[in-house]
Order: sequence, then C-alpha cells, then structure tokens
Amino acid sequence: MIIVMKSGATKREKEEVLGRIKELGYKPHVIHGTTRDVIGAVGDERGKQIVIETIESMHGVESVVPILKAYKLASKEVKKESSIIQITDSLSIGGSQIVVMAGPCAVESEKQIIETAVAVKQAGAHVLRGGAFKPRTSPYSFQGMKEKGLKLLAKARKVTGLPIITEVVNPESADLVAEYADILQIGTRNAQNFELLKKVGQIKKPVMLKRGMSMTIKELLMSAEYIMSEGNQSVILCERGIRTFETATRNTLDLSAIPVLKGETHLPVVADPSHGTGHSKYVAAMSFSAAAAGVDGLMIEVHPDPEHATSDGPQSLTPKDFTALMSKLKLFAEAAGRTI
Amino acid sequence: MIIVMKSGATKREKEEVLGRIKELGYKPHVIHGTTRDVIGAVGDERGKQIVIETIESMHGVESVVPILKAYKLASKEVKKESSIIQITDSLSIGGSQIVVMAGPCAVESEKQIIETAVAVKQAGAHVLRGGAFKPRTSPYSFQGMKEKGLKLLAKARKVTGLPIITEVVNPESADLVAEYADILQIGTRNAQNFELLKKVGQIKKPVMLKRGMSMTIKELLMSAEYIMSEGNQSVILCERGIRTFETATRNTLDLSAIPVLKGETHLPVVADPSHGTGHSKYVAAMSFSAAAAGVDGLMIEVHPDPEHATSDGPQSLTPKDFTALMSKLKLFAEAAGRTI
Amino acid sequence: MIIVMKSGATKREKEEVLGRIKELGYKPHVIHGTTRDVIGAVGDERGKQIVIETIESMHGVESVVPILKAYKLASKEVKKESSIIQITDSLSIGGSQIVVMAGPCAVESEKQIIETAVAVKQAGAHVLRGGAFKPRTSPYSFQGMKEKGLKLLAKARKVTGLPIITEVVNPESADLVAEYADILQIGTRNAQNFELLKKVGQIKKPVMLKRGMSMTIKELLMSAEYIMSEGNQSVILCERGIRTFETATRNTLDLSAIPVLKGETHLPVVADPSHGTGHSKYVAAMSFSAAAAGVDGLMIEVHPDPEHATSDGPQSLTPKDFTALMSKLKLFAEAAGRTI
Amino acid sequence: MIIVMKSGATKREKEEVLGRIKELGYKPHVIHGTTRDVIGAVGDERGKQIVIETIESMHGVESVVPILKAYKLASKEVKKESSIIQITDSLSIGGSQIVVMAGPCAVESEKQIIETAVAVKQAGAHVLRGGAFKPRTSPYSFQGMKEKGLKLLAKARKVTGLPIITEVVNPESADLVAEYADILQIGTRNAQNFELLKKVGQIKKPVMLKRGMSMTIKELLMSAEYIMSEGNQSVILCERGIRTFETATRNTLDLSAIPVLKGETHLPVVADPSHGTGHSKYVAAMSFSAAAAGVDGLMIEVHPDPEHATSDGPQSLTPKDFTALMSKLKLFAEAAGRTI
Repeated sequence: MIIVMKSGATKREKEEVLGRIKELGYKPHVIHGTTRDVIGAVGDERGKQIVIETIESMHGVESVVPILKAYKLASKEVKKESSIIQITDSLSIGGSQIVVMAGPCAVESEKQIIETAVAVKQAGAHVLRGGAFKPRTSPYSFQGMKEKGLKLLAKARKVTGLPIITEVVNPESADLVAEYADILQIGTRNAQNFELLKKVGQIKKPVMLKRGMSMTIKELLMSAEYIMSEGNQSVILCERGIRTFETATRNTLDLSAIPVLKGETHLPVVADPSHGTGHSKYVAAMSFSAAAAGVDGLMIEVHPDPEHATSDGPQSLTPKDFTALMSKLKLFAEAAGRTI
Repeated sequence: MIIVMKSGATKREKEEVLGRIKELGYKPHVIHGTTRDVIGAVGDERGKQIVIETIESMHGVESVVPILKAYKLASKEVKKESSIIQITDSLSIGGSQIVVMAGPCAVESEKQIIETAVAVKQAGAHVLRGGAFKPRTSPYSFQGMKEKGLKLLAKARKVTGLPIITEVVNPESADLVAEYADILQIGTRNAQNFELLKKVGQIKKPVMLKRGMSMTIKELLMSAEYIMSEGNQSVILCERGIRTFETATRNTLDLSAIPVLKGETHLPVVADPSHGTGHSKYVAAMSFSAAAAGVDGLMIEVHPDPEHATSDGPQSLTPKDFTALMSKLKLFAEAAGRTI
Repeated sequence: MIIVMKSGATKREKEEVLGRIKELGYKPHVIHGTTRDVIGAVGDERGKQIVIETIESMHGVESVVPILKAYKLASKEVKKESSIIQITDSLSIGGSQIVVMAGPCAVESEKQIIETAVAVKQAGAHVLRGGAFKPRTSPYSFQGMKEKGLKLLAKARKVTGLPIITEVVNPESADLVAEYADILQIGTRNAQNFELLKKVGQIKKPVMLKRGMSMTIKELLMSAEYIMSEGNQSVILCERGIRTFETATRNTLDLSAIPVLKGETHLPVVADPSHGTGHSKYVAAMSFSAAAAGVDGLMIEVHPDPEHATSDGPQSLTPKDFTALMSKLKLFAEAAGRTI
Repeated sequence: MIIVMKSGATKREKEEVLGRIKELGYKPHVIHGTTRDVIGAVGDERGKQIVIETIESMHGVESVVPILKAYKLASKEVKKESSIIQITDSLSIGGSQIVVMAGPCAVESEKQIIETAVAVKQAGAHVLRGGAFKPRTSPYSFQGMKEKGLKLLAKARKVTGLPIITEVVNPESADLVAEYADILQIGTRNAQNFELLKKVGQIKKPVMLKRGMSMTIKELLMSAEYIMSEGNQSVILCERGIRTFETATRNTLDLSAIPVLKGETHLPVVADPSHGTGHSKYVAAMSFSAAAAGVDGLMIEVHPDPEHATSDGPQSLTPKDFTALMSKLKLFAEAAGRTI
C-alpha cells in the first residue's frame, strides 16, 4: 500500500499517518520526494482493504494506492496453471477444446426445446442452454416456465446427451436448479448479488458467472472470489458485453477482456456474442472474433423460430445459421490451435 | 409501435410484417416514404414488448421503435399528482420538506450508532441510516452485524425518535428487516435483482430503490414498476451516481436525472451525494446542488470517526461537518421554496 | 513515481529497472514488500511522463504509478488563490459574481441577434454568446455566418454594451475572431485540438475552454495547461456534459466536476446546462444546481424563436423563460453567498 | 421522420405541428394511436436534420425520431459494392488482402525509422506508419520532428518500398504532409475537427479517419461524410478503442463496430489494437480477433526499443514480437478467406 501525502502536509499529519499504519500492523517506509512525501506500508493488505480506505480520510493525505490484488483464489499469482473444469465425464472446459453452449434464451415448450436441442447437437454444440427462471427488465414480460422448464431441459438432455446450463435467480431456488443443471449460470444483473454468489459457492456444480454490465474486470474477479471462498473452485467467467455510449449494438462486447483475464486468472473464459451484440446478424463475426481472442467457450442463442421467441428474438440464430457458424468457427479454432 | 422497413424491402416481406402485426392484435398503418416504408402498429403495446423485439428479426425490417412507455404505475401519464409517501405519522416524503437521511454506512457497535443517531438528530436529520446487512465487493470485507445490527438500529430509534432506513439484501431476510425498518433500502447492486424487488413489493413498508450503476432512467422506472405491480406503491427513487469513465469521483452523480424523473414519474426522488462522489470533501457541494435540482430528500453518510469506519470511511462526514452542511442546506432549500 | 514490480520479478530485472531510473536522473528507493517490491523514483517527473510509460514496458514491471500532477500552471499547488479574470473594465469572472453568458447557439440574422441581446441584457445576463463559425456533426447542416456573424455580434455589443463570447474553430481564423470577441470559446470537439490550443495561448484574450465529451478532469486541466504554457493565463473552464450510456439527456452534466476542479485549480469554472441536458425543460433546474455546486458562471442558450432556430432549438430557452430563470437564480446565488 | 405527440396534446398543438411539417416541405401523415398520435413526415430529410430538432421544441411534441440516415455518400444504401481504395499501383485496401500498417508511434531518428521500416517490411507489413506531427495530451511531451520527420519517412519508403501513413494535425500543414504521405491519418482527437476534415477532403490522397474516443458509429460515418462531401471518396475508417469505465485497457477496442460498419458502409475498415489496448501484451490477441471480425487492415505500433520510445512505449511491439504476430495472423486471415 502506498500513501501519497499532500504537498503541504505538516509534520504532525505525517506522524499521525505513520502511527495509524503501525496500529494496523504494517511497517511504514517513508520516501521524501521533491514536492511531497510518499509512504509505503509493508504487510499483507488483502482482506484489509478497508484500511486503505480509511487512511484516505486522514488529514494531509492526498490519495492511497493499493498494490496487492484484492482477489486471491481467482488469481494466477496463486495458481499458475489454467484450471480445467469438468462438466461431464467426457466434457471439460479450460483445455484445448472451445466449448460451445447453444440454445434458446428461454424454455418455452417441449417441442421448442427438444427441437432446438437436437438441432444444436447436430450442428456440433456441446452444451444446451435455456432459461427456466428468467430475470426480465419488465414485470409484464414472460418470467419463465420455472420448474416445468427445468424438467423439459432434463428431457432434452436425455434425448440428446447434451449437458445443460441454466440460470439461478435467487438463493431460495438454487438447490432446485442444481438438481437439474450441469452448469449453474449467474446472470449479468446478479453478478454482484453477493447472497446468491455465496449460495452457489456452497453447491458442488460448475458455475458460469456473467460479467455485470458496468463491472470492471477486477470486480468480476472479486465476484468469482465470493464463489470460490465458499468452497466452489469450478467457476467459468463470461464476457457478455458492457454498457457504453454506443447504441448500434445492445452492449459493447469487450473482447480485450479475454487476454486481460487470461493474464490475471487461471479460470476459463467464455464469450456471449448474442447478448454482447443484441443482433443476430453480428453473432457469427463476434463468435469468430472471440475464438481468435482466446476464449475457452462460446454461448450462443439459437431458436427454431426467432420471430416468435418469447425473449431475445432479435439476437437468436436459426438452427440453419448456427450450423453455418459452426462450420466456419472450426477454421478459426484451428487457427488458434484449438478444437471445437 | 413504429416499424421501419429496409430501403430495399420486397413486397412479400412487407406483407409478412403486416400479417404478423395483425396476428399480434395490432392495426397496421403504412406510410410510404421517399426511400423506405414505415409501418405504424396501433394498439396497446405495454406488456407486449416482446412483440417489438421479434418483429425486428423479420426479413426486410431495419428497426423497430417503441412509442408507448414500458412503465405504467410509475408513470406521470397515469397519475399526474406527486406521490407523498408517509414514513411515520409525522414525517412524509414527496411534499414540501426535503427529508434528510443520515448515518453511518454500517452499524458497527451500540456506541457508534447511538452516538451518530444523537448527533444527526441534533443537526436536523429526519431519518437514521445504517446498514446491518452489507453487500461488499470483496468476500473478505466486513459483511455487517446482521440481526444484531437491526436491534441496535431499533435502539437508536428509541433513543432519538428517528425512523430508520436499512438495506435488504435478499428475499429470505426481507421480512426480518421489515420488522425493524421504517424504510427498506434496495441497494445499487440489487436494483435489477427482480426476485428481491417482487419480495419487497409484497411488504407494506416504503421502499427506497437505488439506481444501478449502469441503469438508465427508464430501467430504474421499470424496477420501480416491479415493486408497484406487486402492490406496494410507496417507492422512493434514489440517484446515487452512475459509472462513467471519470475516476476523480467514485461515480458520476447524475443530477440531471432529477428533473428528468420529476417529468416522468410521480414518485419522490432522493440523491445520495456520499456514494455519488466517494469523497467527503465533495458531499456538501453536491447536497446543495441536489437540493437546487429539486430532490425530495438526501441520503448522507455520517460517522463519528471516519478514519476507523469499517466501510466508506473516505466518503463519510464527521458530525461536525454534517452540522455545518445542514445549516447551509437550509438556505438552498429556502431558495427552492422548500423546508428541511 | 512509483514502480510496482511483478511478484516473481528476478534480481536482474530489478537491477535493470534501477539502472534505468538512475539513467533518467531519478533517485531510486526500494521498498521490499511481502509479495513484491515497490520502487519509488524521487525527482521532478513533470514533463517527463514518457519516462513513466517506458519503464512499464520493462521486464518484471507490473505497473507504474505517477505521483506528481502532470499540470503545473493550472494547479492550485502552484498558485493557491483563485484567479479572477478580467473580461471588460467592469466585468470579471472568478470573484463573487456568477457571470451569466446567454444568447443563441448560432448568429442567424441581425434581427435575431440584436433582439436576443436586448432581451438577455434586460433579464440580467452579463455576456452575449453566439456562434459565427459553427462546428456541426453533419456537413449538410448550417455552418455559421462566419465573419458576417462576427460583425453582427459586434453590433449587438454596441447596442447593449454586453461583451461577447464566440467560438474559434481553427488556428487560421483565430486572429480574425479575436478582433471581435471579448472571450474566445474552444468547443467540446476541439478540446484536444492542440494546434488550436497553442494558437489561442498566443492571443491576449480570455479563453473559455469546454470539456471534451469524453475528457477526464485531468485531461481538461492538461488542455488548459497547453494554453497557459503559451503565455495566456486567462483560461475559464467549462463543464458541458460528458458522454455516458444515459440517453434521456443529450449528455450527462457532471456537476461533481465543479467541486473537484475547485480543489485542483485556481481557474474559474463555468457550467453549460443547455448542452449538458439538450432539452430546454431541464435547463433551469440544472442552472440552479450548478450555482449551488459553486460555479463562477453559466452559459445558457436563448433564442427568440426556438422552433425556427438553425441549431440547438430543443435546448434553447425563450427570452421569457430565461427571464424567469434569472429571477430564481438570484435566490440560489444568494444562498451560495454570491451575486449575479 | 416520425413525430411522437404527447398523450395529452391538444388539437391546436397538433395542427401547429402539421403546419410546420408542411412549411418545411414534407407531407404529414397522422396515425391515431390508443394513447397518443404519431405523425409521419414524408420527404427527404437528409441535410435537414435541423428540422427534426426544432419540431421537438414545439408544444405537445414528446419526441422526434429520424428515419433516414444522416450520411449518404458513406452509406451502403447509396453504393452497395465495397470500395477498394488504391494506395499505390500494387497495393489497395478493401479487397481480399488484409493490409498491415506497422511502425513506431513517432519518428525519432533516421536510425530508428529506417531500422523499424526494414524490420516490419521483412515481417510482411505493407505500409509504414510513423508520426511526424504528434498531438500529445501534455504540452511538455515530445511534439514530433515535424517536416524533418516527414523527410525521414520518405527516406524509409525509398529504402524499403513501403508506402507511408502519417498524421495531419491542422489544416495549415495538411498540404505539406500530403507531399510526403501515401495515406493521411486523422487522429482520434481530431475526428470531429471539421475544419481539418474539410481540408483533407480537398486533397487527392487516401485518408484514414480514426474514430474519436466517444464517437458513435453514426458520428464516425458523419465525419467520413465531411471528407467525402468535399470530393475525396478514398476514406478508410479506423476503430481504435472507445472510452469506457474499464481501466485494465487504455481504451475498449469495440470490435463489434467492424460488422456494424460493414453493414452500414462500403468503406474499408481498419483496427488499431495498439491504441485499443494500450499494452503490448494484448496486441497479438486483438489483432487476430480483429482479423476474425472482418477488418480490411490493421495498424500496429512497432518500435526497435520500446523502453526508450518517446511515446507509446508500453503498447509497442518489438520487431521480434511483430514477426511472430504476423506469422500467426496469416492463419486467421486464411480462416477468414483473406490473405495478408
């Protein structure tokens, strides 16, 4: 931790800061600069971030610069080799394969989900996605089929053999969802719902954590840390677009987050070009782009009849478009030294 | 709803769009433009937003422009006069008084909360704030005193007579919090935690809903609509800063949201300059500024010893600074034709 | 300057960093931390920012944290007392008076500018604004009356006695504009047009520098530094809204920038609620709000017939609305201990 | 153009809007909705955007929705086939080849630029980049070698045969730069310096226009329109990162802008992963990612000794790293059906 003093800080102010540093169990180290002093505080500041904050409110202090990273279990400094997370006996994520998760935004009917599952399986997808509990911006929109939807997902798994990923929206229903799902999904709007993060941290199932719309990469890793600190190390991170001033796309898919995350953490990273762009016509280009950037997986919305979808129609691919995407994706995966 | 066709849309594509519009129960109305056609769909689109989305994925469609507002209960179109929400027998918000809610970020001890309550009461605050359940970015930070904290808040209320506002972090503990609190607070990171919104919509207590860090004003009103559509009309909106590229302040307090909200909704609007700026030295100026912009209330962090606070130290005022703020705030309230 | 080494940095990497620091004329100072080393480099880094950048690309270096502020002439550290900038013999900005600059976006005709000038003068404005050279997003929009517009502004000054502020759009025409204007305005889109900044830095006229749409407060001060380092110390800063995800307003007026700037610089600060909000109905509230936040001046668009304005109609006030605004503004100025 | 009336708009207000529409040469077309009326105004609104703005300030009007695109020459609606821009007799951009422009941020010395030119040529680059006039955030930073730098670039072209791209910073020096450069570059901070855009629109040399840091895709196309409307159709667009809240990268490279631009315009599109990320370690991944997203070219900073660069050291690749990048880029170009 580095404390930058104001240029006119008094001797007494400096002494009080030094006293407070010692009181907190750190060793102070003063550097006398040309216009101001800078104090290094040596010690393990992880989990004591509050210390940093409070010193900033002392007289004579200009700013406080944390040095240590706030996350630990998620950090590559602590675990250097990439984590490979087992989804089923024959499928894992984080290795050489780019795992493709595809399916509708929401489970709407048995016909719809089975038809989609068969189609995406045939096109080469590895995991079936589909929401049973749907967090929707409007209270007047379709909120999902709930447990009935989970049962249909299980049926689709039985038919196709595809493992399923589906969203958990509150701690209360987490165990229920975990009975059916192979991967639990934490949605964007719940990315800092800490009660929910703690809960899925206690369940023994892989969790895919989506980045919040205005979440920094550091904060995403802190949310992963919440899950991991409860005992669940099987966390998959998902870049799904951040909110910016640009409105041509629904969000701005931050693909540079992929190499940044790959440098910071050992956890697998997935991209969601469907939510990232919001328009089906951009999904293929962004899927290839994400593969080239180094993702371990892709999450893509596919619907047999996008015009009649109950949600996210405009960003859903038809099975035909998805099949075309998969055959081109193979080329980009190969260029990246990966398989699909 | 307005559907803009592509400039080269075929006759057949137009016919299919017209068919779909009718199928959805709307009356189509074509305007032949110089370069493209535009189709108006007449009917009540509220609660059918999905229609809008799906038509966008039809061939020949360039974009779909919704006309009707997605919120209803929160809208000034539906209820023209301002809502005055009763907090206690003698205190209400939304009328001519600017209601000041002050207190520490977190309840830390009996001494701390009683001492603060007495001080803010003396300075003229109307409501005591204090978190018992704390959603923190890091799992290693202090997570709040929980029910013990609620009991201490109740004690502080008894001592000072000040009603209390405190945060609800998940549906499970909402009833417990409601037993103690006079106003339930929904925090920024839970502003689109729809399960929680539904839950507090079923409780008969006023709710203060904080704007999410990257939430548009429309989305904030949609979240209010969630609470209201469950039966609870006592919703107070809170502007607390949005996330932008500027880092000199912790967030960017969007004070223009206040007149915008005042034009769109009948609900009372509060500002939180403590979280909005993140630095105690900017809190007074932003409090005055919010009062001048037309807020119905202010939420301000006060701590007897900011340097030793367990959270938000740098943005907390000392009781002395808060007292000075209150005496100047009076002048701005008067200029605005309000009292405090 | 603080150099944070990677946790696994080798001895040799550290030595090379130490060598480079000395080579650049700084004195290194190593702090051995628990997980990584941190090196303080003592010396005046101002104007040597490049040093900071390049060390970051050395092996074993995690990040480089600058300590000294990059601006100097604009800084309050160098000049503590507020600058009062003389506009005319009887008018200055930066003192106790809040200076109101009002007028149309663009000069359109003699009738229009004289009529507006008379009206804003009568309502109490101190400076007449009006663009003769107009930077417009579309090449097909009205680009201003150019020198003819300047002559009309001069005529309006003669009629009313109001000094005039008008925009300079390129170095070539700066001297021409300076012949007519009392204050030179640098527009948002030119806030980092460094060639233009240098040019107005060589002219002996006050300059009002608008913040760029995505400019940090630090960068705004660096642009002021450009003007000042050429010899012109009469710089007025203008907050006019930044670009964020919110679309209810044209920009997000960052009023917290006002106390931040007041803490960082001795230069006067003005707010432009017309461009900040983009809608005339929000201009009054934001003017009062800016006054309460501590501005030294306001810039407000007024047009005798907004519906027929050649630009910025939706954000222009009628003379009648402006007169009402001014009479209320007086109350907020008084609350702030200021006059208008 | 669509005018949305307020739900309570009076008959007289509607009539005045209808009158104004006719006055402006449009044909009005009223749609009576369930809660409000909507008026379509048929006619060519391009170049009359101001009309749209002013109607919004009329009584009874809620909002105005433009339908027609504001750009014309840049639009794919007007010219369907992709533009192929000739740079030299043997090199063009916009066809099947991905054109790689590489070199230092700034020309620093003869040795530096020749050495870099030889290295990037050998690695397979097609164009040499290098700044002679440098727009720098700080007035105290190196501002470029100016004409001497241009001469050195010309020398490097002679030695290697590589055409050169270099930045133009003001209208005055544009002709001078055009004497030396094969492609004129408009930098990010000048992307809405309309005087400069007009000037390069009058020069017969290809122009690469960089997107401003907070510029929407529409605005970028409007700036291209400025150049094209002056007669120069050889415009290359460059995505170089937008400003967002994320600080892990210098900017957020908006790769989804590539398919969006490809759908909107016939102009070639280039990406700059060096400025887009700000850190050399992310440049390769983002180059591959951009190629997969469909770019026609890449602009990459290469410096023989990044640690001693006068600018942008941290984001510059060494010739060795660049050579490695190029050999992998070939694979992604092939996957995209392109050559390099």
